[in-house]
Amino acid sequence: LVQRIAYLGPPGTFGEQAALRYGPGAATIAFPSHPAVVQAVDNGDVDEGIVAIENSLEGPVNETLDALLRHDRVFVRSELVLPIDHNLIAAPGLAIDAIEVVMSHPQALAQCRGYLETRLPKVRVEAALSTAAAVATSVATPGAAAIGSRRTAELNGGAILAEHIQDVALNKTRFFALGRSDHEATGDDKTSIAFTVAHDRPGSLIGVLQELSQRQINMTRVESRPSREDLGIYVFLIDFQGHRTEALAAEALEAVEAKSTYFRLFGSYPRFVEPA
Amino acid sequence: LVQRIAYLGPPGTFGEQAALRYGPGAATIAFPSHPAVVQAVDNGDVDEGIVAIENSLEGPVNETLDALLRHDRVFVRSELVLPIDHNLIAAPGLAIDAIEVVMSHPQALAQCRGYLETRLPKVRVEAALSTAAAVATSVATPGAAAIGSRRTAELNGGAILAEHIQDVALNKTRFFALGRSDHEATGDDKTSIAFTVAHDRPGSLIGVLQELSQRQINMTRVESRPSREDLGIYVFLIDFQGHRTEALAAEALEAVEAKSTYFRLFGSYPRFVEPA
Repeated sequence: LVQRIAYLGPPGTFGEQAALRYGPGAATIAFPSHPAVVQAVDNGDVDEGIVAIENSLEGPVNETLDALLRHDRVFVRSELVLPIDHNLIAAPGLAIDAIEVVMSHPQALAQCRGYLETRLPKVRVEAALSTAAAVATSVATPGAAAIGSRRTAELNGGAILAEHIQDVALNKTRFFALGRSDHEATGDDKTSIAFTVAHDRPGSLIGVLQELSQRQINMTRVESRPSREDLGIYVFLIDFQGHRTEALAAEALEAVEAKSTYFRLFGSYPRFVEPA
Repeated sequence: LVQRIAYLGPPGTFGEQAALRYGPGAATIAFPSHPAVVQAVDNGDVDEGIVAIENSLEGPVNETLDALLRHDRVFVRSELVLPIDHNLIAAPGLAIDAIEVVMSHPQALAQCRGYLETRLPKVRVEAALSTAAAVATSVATPGAAAIGSRRTAELNGGAILAEHIQDVALNKTRFFALGRSDHEATGDDKTSIAFTVAHDRPGSLIGVLQELSQRQINMTRVESRPSREDLGIYVFLIDFQGHRTEALAAEALEAVEAKSTYFRLFGSYPRFVEPA
């Protein structure tokens, strides 16, 4: 039973929403960063932790991927996909015309750039460390508004001046639930791995990927992260359909590991299915 | 002759340093974002533009890649690699013990997290829109320091309280010089492309990569970016050694394009060689 779930706080973040949906009834505990969530899982301070992995507009969440690579006793137990919806929030009573500054996390500001340029062209834009922090500050600051979630507005006593202000309607974030072991097979699973190959040899990456394709295993995601050794040396992160205990997947994993200079299994977990 | 070079301002950024090194004697013109630099090149407002592409610690610069994908009349003419060095900067006379807040761009703060935690554990951290903006603000704010480059300190009359404060000594950023055409062959070149493949078929990515590997063409970089259509649909960005006019590279490019659902040639350009 999951009793304590870590997430990227403060309360009101999309991470908290994912944690509440993943573990209804569990205690949700805010941590200041994604690496701190991963650390708390590794330490055993919590049962599981929720971290954002990728967003349909922004791409991978690099600090999460890098933290996972550093903690090899932490595994993926589940994935969740949440729609991301941005709102313009301010202290109750502030009119849109009276807004002097809009604050938010740089990523949220970027996702609402079109709205800000067309509807609030003369307003100053200010960076904050999180959308939740921006909403808390804006509600207490005359003339200030913030971009954040509906829940952030509720938690901070803010009023919603405009809904769905992101430039692209389709905006989803994929989260991982992390624990100290992965998930048993359910029949509809995914597996996530990371590896490094000899970087100066033509075809070494392809040689690894062929171990999947020749077994008809479908890759659902390919990312690369810098190895932090030098420019041009990368860690590849791959998700594919199947559970590590299934015969073809097990065979492929063994072959990939044999061809890699570094290999890490993040684990197998049930594939997320959108609620109807 | 390059007379006007756009870069991500304000003056003092690493982008300006790259522009000054790339086009000595040219006028350097600051723009507010990487997309604005790409737009200025596309419009013909400048001859060329300098944009950051990837960093050895942080990985790809997503807003640059996304802007390049949107502007198909803009091409890569050159690449440059610059070492990135962070300094603690404040108004002259401020002692390290008297610092109450450290401000910088979130990426610079992240790269100096170890230094901040061990040397300034009680100091508040504040996000800014750029390192240059942080230094300008900090120099005018009692008790404030900022993280930025040596040149930012000079431009703003700031004093350097500590040098090389980044957690990992090796920190390099790779820049592209963009123009309205790419570069002729020099005998030691690279080529950058982007493409999308059918995402629900096992092996479709590998089929494309094999067009390079079976011709012994060395890929130097593989990135993916979200297509902005849905989670799980990606645009792949690949760099390889060779010029698009060379026989094998030309053959491979034709085959890659034939197998792609979207294809974009960013161009061929001289490979960067570290100065001795």
